[in-house]
Amino acid sequence: MERVCCVVQYDGTNYSGFQIQSNSNRTIQEKIEKALTKMHKGKPMKIIASGRTDAGVHAYGQVFHFDSDLYIPEYNWKKGLQTLLPSDIQIVEVHKVSMDFHARYDTSQKEYRYRVLNTKDKDVFRRNVTYHVPYDLNIGKIKEACKYIEGTHDFTSFSSTKTRVRGERVRTVYEATCEIQGDELLFIFRGDGFLYNMVRILVGTLIQVGRGRREPEDIPVIMEAKERTKAGVTAPAQGLFLWKVDYKGQG
Amino acid sequence: MERVCCVVQYDGTNYSGFQIQSNSNRTIQEKIEKALTKMHKGKPMKIIASGRTDAGVHAYGQVFHFDSDLYIPEYNWKKGLQTLLPSDIQIVEVHKVSMDFHARYDTSQKEYRYRVLNTKDKDVFRRNVTYHVPYDLNIGKIKEACKYIEGTHDFTSFSSTKTRVRGERVRTVYEATCEIQGDELLFIFRGDGFLYNMVRILVGTLIQVGRGRREPEDIPVIMEAKERTKAGVTAPAQGLFLWKVDYKGQG
Repeated sequence: MERVCCVVQYDGTNYSGFQIQSNSNRTIQEKIEKALTKMHKGKPMKIIASGRTDAGVHAYGQVFHFDSDLYIPEYNWKKGLQTLLPSDIQIVEVHKVSMDFHARYDTSQKEYRYRVLNTKDKDVFRRNVTYHVPYDLNIGKIKEACKYIEGTHDFTSFSSTKTRVRGERVRTVYEATCEIQGDELLFIFRGDGFLYNMVRILVGTLIQVGRGRREPEDIPVIMEAKERTKAGVTAPAQGLFLWKVDYKGQG
Repeated sequence: MERVCCVVQYDGTNYSGFQIQSNSNRTIQEKIEKALTKMHKGKPMKIIASGRTDAGVHAYGQVFHFDSDLYIPEYNWKKGLQTLLPSDIQIVEVHKVSMDFHARYDTSQKEYRYRVLNTKDKDVFRRNVTYHVPYDLNIGKIKEACKYIEGTHDFTSFSSTKTRVRGERVRTVYEATCEIQGDELLFIFRGDGFLYNMVRILVGTLIQVGRGRREPEDIPVIMEAKERTKAGVTAPAQGLFLWKVDYKGQG
């Protein structure tokens, strides 16, 4: 048996999320496990990812692992798997790892990116990969607000009440930035972990700051409240990308 | 009665082309005419576009006109139509024009663009809007070859044999350029008109030049032959955009 770790990109548009669900057969996990099962001549295969992503959310560098008794070279894994996957899921890297590596438990840092299209009109070519905000935004204020997000905080106010995670809601955000890229705003969030919907609620709140409906100084007040209703709306799924996952003892 | 002219963007990925076909109900024209018919309370509406685009080909600035007895302001046309159109078709501009304007016959110039993704690996997010070419390309040679395309020539060799257009195959290309944009090559073709598949065959041939399989000097030889088989393969539809249509007496 050997453990294989893969980096995968996917366009989440046509999927109901990463994780297999009883009521949907359009999940990323299902497509990958089906391909692996085929490669293993029908032996049912399971993968473990760094975490799930919601319906419509994309990944630039999602990571998963699985165990196999096929002993194929890394390059052939990449090629073989790719042949069996649809064109909106793509294996970027394959690494053989030690049997004690775990794609979910060994993460040290995750990076999410969020794209906002800040133009008057929509753009058909970016409708599935950006959140269209047709209002004037004060980027200076958004940048100020971002500063309050960085650091170690209780992010209860910025997490979905639907989350089943109990207890600890303290996370450390190493980077929360916003930069202009052409007619888009690019948000980057890097941290030791993120609560359910956390990035989307942060972006929803930051956009309100940009529109002048909240002040940057409101961010610490919202955090202090530890109440979801104090924060802004959840920004839509299609602007969100799981960009990169780092692991303990890496590099 | 008044004549209304619209500029429309569309992502052609999920369509079998612009023009209504007897064997498909997924055409851009069908969606627009359906929306217009609805706005006219069931009265069947027809549109006339600057030209057709093939299955999978996109438009950034396609133009069409129609006649209406509704007399609604331009802004309301835009908003009303958009509400009835799917998210991959978008009305960009609406202008009332004189009754003798014709979206097809009055064109003076068309611009097409073609995007080539020149990276080793594919990119899931650009799979529907670029042609992936994973080989080293000599851009200098491609630029040299482009120079031979500009001017007035018989483009028979660069047009599909399926075309039903008889007679005149002479067209004037005002601009044929190739520039590097990040990890992509952007081809721009501007001319008084284009034959069926002409841009895609030009790009297919230019990529062969970039790979060293043909020389820039082969372009005039291919033209001279007036035979489709002398040119390169037809590049795939998804990299092609009808970018802009200009009209006589404009600007």
